[in-house]
Amino acid sequence: MNPVWWQMPCQPIDGAAMAAARERQQQLTKPAGSLGQLETLAIQLAGLQGCERPVLEHVAISLFAGDHGVVEEGVSAYPQAVTGQMLRNFVGGGAAISVLARQLHATLEVVDLGTVDPTLALPGVRHVHLGPGTANFAREPALSEAQLQAALQAGRDSALRAAAHGAQLFIGGEMGIGNTTAAAALASVLLACPPAALSGPGTGLDSAGVQHKAHVIERALALHRLAADEPLRALGCVGGFELAALAGAYLACAQAGVAVLVDGFICTVAALVAVRLNPQCRAWLLFAHQGAEPGHQTVLSALQAEPLLALGLRLGEGSGAALAVPLLRLACALHGQMATFAEAAVADRPA
Amino acid sequence: MNPVWWQMPCQPIDGAAMAAARERQQQLTKPAGSLGQLETLAIQLAGLQGCERPVLEHVAISLFAGDHGVVEEGVSAYPQAVTGQMLRNFVGGGAAISVLARQLHATLEVVDLGTVDPTLALPGVRHVHLGPGTANFAREPALSEAQLQAALQAGRDSALRAAAHGAQLFIGGEMGIGNTTAAAALASVLLACPPAALSGPGTGLDSAGVQHKAHVIERALALHRLAADEPLRALGCVGGFELAALAGAYLACAQAGVAVLVDGFICTVAALVAVRLNPQCRAWLLFAHQGAEPGHQTVLSALQAEPLLALGLRLGEGSGAALAVPLLRLACALHGQMATFAEAAVADRPA
Repeated sequence: MNPVWWQMPCQPIDGAAMAAARERQQQLTKPAGSLGQLETLAIQLAGLQGCERPVLEHVAISLFAGDHGVVEEGVSAYPQAVTGQMLRNFVGGGAAISVLARQLHATLEVVDLGTVDPTLALPGVRHVHLGPGTANFAREPALSEAQLQAALQAGRDSALRAAAHGAQLFIGGEMGIGNTTAAAALASVLLACPPAALSGPGTGLDSAGVQHKAHVIERALALHRLAADEPLRALGCVGGFELAALAGAYLACAQAGVAVLVDGFICTVAALVAVRLNPQCRAWLLFAHQGAEPGHQTVLSALQAEPLLALGLRLGEGSGAALAVPLLRLACALHGQMATFAEAAVADRPA
Repeated sequence: MNPVWWQMPCQPIDGAAMAAARERQQQLTKPAGSLGQLETLAIQLAGLQGCERPVLEHVAISLFAGDHGVVEEGVSAYPQAVTGQMLRNFVGGGAAISVLARQLHATLEVVDLGTVDPTLALPGVRHVHLGPGTANFAREPALSEAQLQAALQAGRDSALRAAAHGAQLFIGGEMGIGNTTAAAALASVLLACPPAALSGPGTGLDSAGVQHKAHVIERALALHRLAADEPLRALGCVGGFELAALAGAYLACAQAGVAVLVDGFICTVAALVAVRLNPQCRAWLLFAHQGAEPGHQTVLSALQAEPLLALGLRLGEGSGAALAVPLLRLACALHGQMATFAEAAVADRPA
């Protein structure tokens, strides 16, 4: 049997470019290491781009939206109609990610994978329509096998479009009322961690709501009898359209050689799924921020991720990743444009 | 007796603009509070700029350089000649802050307050020449009364130039071999904290070097018999030219109504001095980052500062503050450009 697409090899990291970048960092007019995480970033991007002085001009953002059947269990503070309304807002330019994409001169692609309103046809939105939201995973698998494959492929398609347009960085965003519940369920399975430890307020549940959310997940995990070493089945049973698309996009980026900047809790869980499906993709993932959702740090730690920001964000949409883009760009500019000790005739520390 | 200039009132904060900005934040198409620290920032900047939707186009960076007599005690890993060499690099465009200023379209002013080479005359550098560095504070007061007044005034002059050019944000940077020792000494006095708790590796001391640095400070504090309620005398006895200029600049910014973004350890200590000289100025200070110098968190906490970044930076030059500028700008863009629930016809959470 042929391997499925996501098990195909990822692009290798360019060790020579990383070594050259590391050597260059030592020669720039500053005490060694004094730019902290920005130095590591520049070296890492050199390895991913295969050149000593990386640049990040072309940033592609793909925002994946989908509804969640599990919302009928009362796990969200917002009505599902908001998913469709926000799709209009994303392309209309009024959402946070729309403003950020504009400010960063990044492309923004909006993909509707399937919301409760299957008649939605919005100019500027890519409608994939995998179904009227997922099924309620407290009762049955969230995605059918065909939906799961299609959602992974939809993410892959976005990644390949970004690569074809010369993107040097890919950001996946997400929107879907109820998706912190799906993400917490998935992470609970993959990390063999009690749901209560990964369930948080999401967009605004109170503590009773958070407790209820954890109970709904516990019931679902008992129903589906999921194991940590079955990431694909877990994604299908308790995941979501946008979670699968994000995982597919991350995997395809790693295969196409496009660096990924991972956003918040939902995206980090999708990254965890991607890494479990194909561990090679981990090297292509950078992590933007630690969000306010309490489970986020647990998932970041499992991925040995060191995020750049911690601003108490809990919006999603890819907004936290977008906010970190200027730091990556400035890391590249410092790395590429600072003078060396020799060029500037500055004395390095005496031996 | 007339009050000295830095005791004159600071500009008041515009409470009505803050209230309007807070109200606007509640109406933007996102869950309330989901943009975390960026929401607080936008509201704070609204109060400082006196308008509901603040903008941060004009950023002025002033970099203050000076040498430190205490270096003869062996408290730095670098030779003092580096201060002068780096002045050339700052105006030559090869230093970290030069690259950052260019990327941010910020103005960069370089002020030489007095280095070991008093013959320095570099095009593009503002030479104030208060002396060939400060005196060794392990033996005598670092600054004379006249030098102290002139250094405070030099900082004030920079702030007033920035204000005259329409700066909406002021960043002070610093360069001076040995200045973490002076800053640690100052903070030790003002926070009544043992020098060992505030002495760190600076640009690269090993642990024996750090211990020696703390001993040098302990001796100096015993010599000068400084008290926490004498910030001006402490600044003169164990401070530095650039520390005094930074404090003067921060105070003058608050009086002129220009928001300040405070950089790392040295700048935060200067901010502490400024707040002790005139507590009203605290409202005008934003804090960019928590640096790698171990004492930084202590000083930030004393100022109840919540910095935006923590990237392990320890370069100085204003670089950490410059790196945070895009976050402030994006906070303003989100605040000013996002659609409201009403504008976008998105359902807010049901009551």
